[in-house]
Amino acid sequence: MMIYDLIIIGGGPAGITAGIYGARKALKILLLTKDFVGQIGKVGLIENYPGFVEVNGMSLMKSFKDHLQKFDLEIKEGDEVRSLSKKENIFTIETVKKQLFQSKAVIIATGRNPRPLKVPGEIELRNKGVSYCSICDAPLFRGRDVAVIGGGNSGFGAALDSIPYANKIYILEISSKPLADEIEQEKANRSEKIEVILRAKTLEIKGKDKIEMLVYQDLESGQKKELAVQGVFIQVGYLPAADFLKDLVDLTEMGEVIVDPLTGATKTLGLYAAGDVTDVKYKQIVVAAGEGTKALLSAYSFLQNQS
Amino acid sequence: MMIYDLIIIGGGPAGITAGIYGARKALKILLLTKDFVGQIGKVGLIENYPGFVEVNGMSLMKSFKDHLQKFDLEIKEGDEVRSLSKKENIFTIETVKKQLFQSKAVIIATGRNPRPLKVPGEIELRNKGVSYCSICDAPLFRGRDVAVIGGGNSGFGAALDSIPYANKIYILEISSKPLADEIEQEKANRSEKIEVILRAKTLEIKGKDKIEMLVYQDLESGQKKELAVQGVFIQVGYLPAADFLKDLVDLTEMGEVIVDPLTGATKTLGLYAAGDVTDVKYKQIVVAAGEGTKALLSAYSFLQNQS
Repeated sequence: MMIYDLIIIGGGPAGITAGIYGARKALKILLLTKDFVGQIGKVGLIENYPGFVEVNGMSLMKSFKDHLQKFDLEIKEGDEVRSLSKKENIFTIETVKKQLFQSKAVIIATGRNPRPLKVPGEIELRNKGVSYCSICDAPLFRGRDVAVIGGGNSGFGAALDSIPYANKIYILEISSKPLADEIEQEKANRSEKIEVILRAKTLEIKGKDKIEMLVYQDLESGQKKELAVQGVFIQVGYLPAADFLKDLVDLTEMGEVIVDPLTGATKTLGLYAAGDVTDVKYKQIVVAAGEGTKALLSAYSFLQNQS
Repeated sequence: MMIYDLIIIGGGPAGITAGIYGARKALKILLLTKDFVGQIGKVGLIENYPGFVEVNGMSLMKSFKDHLQKFDLEIKEGDEVRSLSKKENIFTIETVKKQLFQSKAVIIATGRNPRPLKVPGEIELRNKGVSYCSICDAPLFRGRDVAVIGGGNSGFGAALDSIPYANKIYILEISSKPLADEIEQEKANRSEKIEVILRAKTLEIKGKDKIEMLVYQDLESGQKKELAVQGVFIQVGYLPAADFLKDLVDLTEMGEVIVDPLTGATKTLGLYAAGDVTDVKYKQIVVAAGEGTKALLSAYSFLQNQS
């Protein structure tokens, strides 16, 4: 079997940036990714990736992918890694579609996925009103009332995405203060459709074939309250996509891959990680891109010293 | 005097990205910078800033600056910081033009400047053929022979910038292998004008009103050799611009500001640093932008906890 210098797992900002830098180093690279959409492709307007004043997530991902494809490296889309192992300095990857690939070094850049809220009704009503992607699903709730669970940037983003469609938009935040950037909060304040409910703990999503009611507890009074909504966007954080790594890496309590922040190195020689899958403190597009660069340049040094 | 929440010193990728993020957090910010050119504005073609397939340094800096100016923050260009001090939780900055500014937090993003080679003739022949900026000065050597000192990416970049103008281009590298990316080396190989001389230690630049000769030692044979050139580009690394920080920070042996790689924090509470002025392992545009984000988000948490 052909042995690549490097396999990059993941097609988000960290993986793509590693690919760009690696191809410039003339490494023999395979980049494996489920898709080039990821979490960013589901974001509406992005205003904080330097150089792009205003860009939607899908367009930014397209710019990244176009950039990557200018270079000479192999890309395989549409499959996922099931397992990774290392034997005698060679990494072997098995995918869900049972493909096998081998390399001397690996960069994990698999990002993270939306965290479920874990309340009754959430699983049952998935795709029947429960959504984790406002960009994908906001248009489904034209003229309806919706609730967004979570008052961070993603929650406010989902509410803003819903303005053109929804009739009424509730943002439920469990703490006493929204965590979103002030600029997002101001945008939300400017819409009469949006109402922020603080200290609200979601208890249940009710309905049969579609959502009828959201039940929450008002932590101020202790009272149970109900909201008649037809859509619920869950925006309560993320889970790192690190299941397949087993004992090759150490994980934080949150399931993040622990890396050396200077180099992206994991505890396994030749295995690097970058971006949202890691314990990097800030999960941001430009941070992930920077960390992808670090991991690649470190992997490159590692490969140079091997040969 | 008005007290800003945050003063950002520097207008490169780290400082600008911090500014973009900080303005979105609705902080009261002053960004102080000598200019928005820096080292990047002097680079020719950039192919590794994700999202911009091919862009010259000046255009990329313009995109960054335009992005920054979309937001509400104060920018002062054309002055330099002479000193920074902290007293009772307030930072005071004095500039070369004797302006005074105060803030609760500071981010240092001053980058670095070209390192002198420190050989006889270098200072005397500055602007008489000795240059640190190929983009600025390559056109001056039309039809002439030039030498580039340093075989890293900057050195190869200077050689490539010179192809349209120079007659003959020598790259002198002191070690036995060029450090530049393979892709840059291949580009250089394709030009008959470029000749790479390895294990060459530059000893002296000779000339009176203009350069006449470059003297180097061939470390292989020990012999002194001469090259008849009219231009010399010095590309042997950089010095961090951290002189004014004194005992507020710890420095590495290389003069880099030591930061917590997760947060950009220095040893002084409320004082952060990001990008090429720090001990970040890789000096790259997208890395600096990522580190600027980290420093800003950390400074923001610090300010939130203060108030």
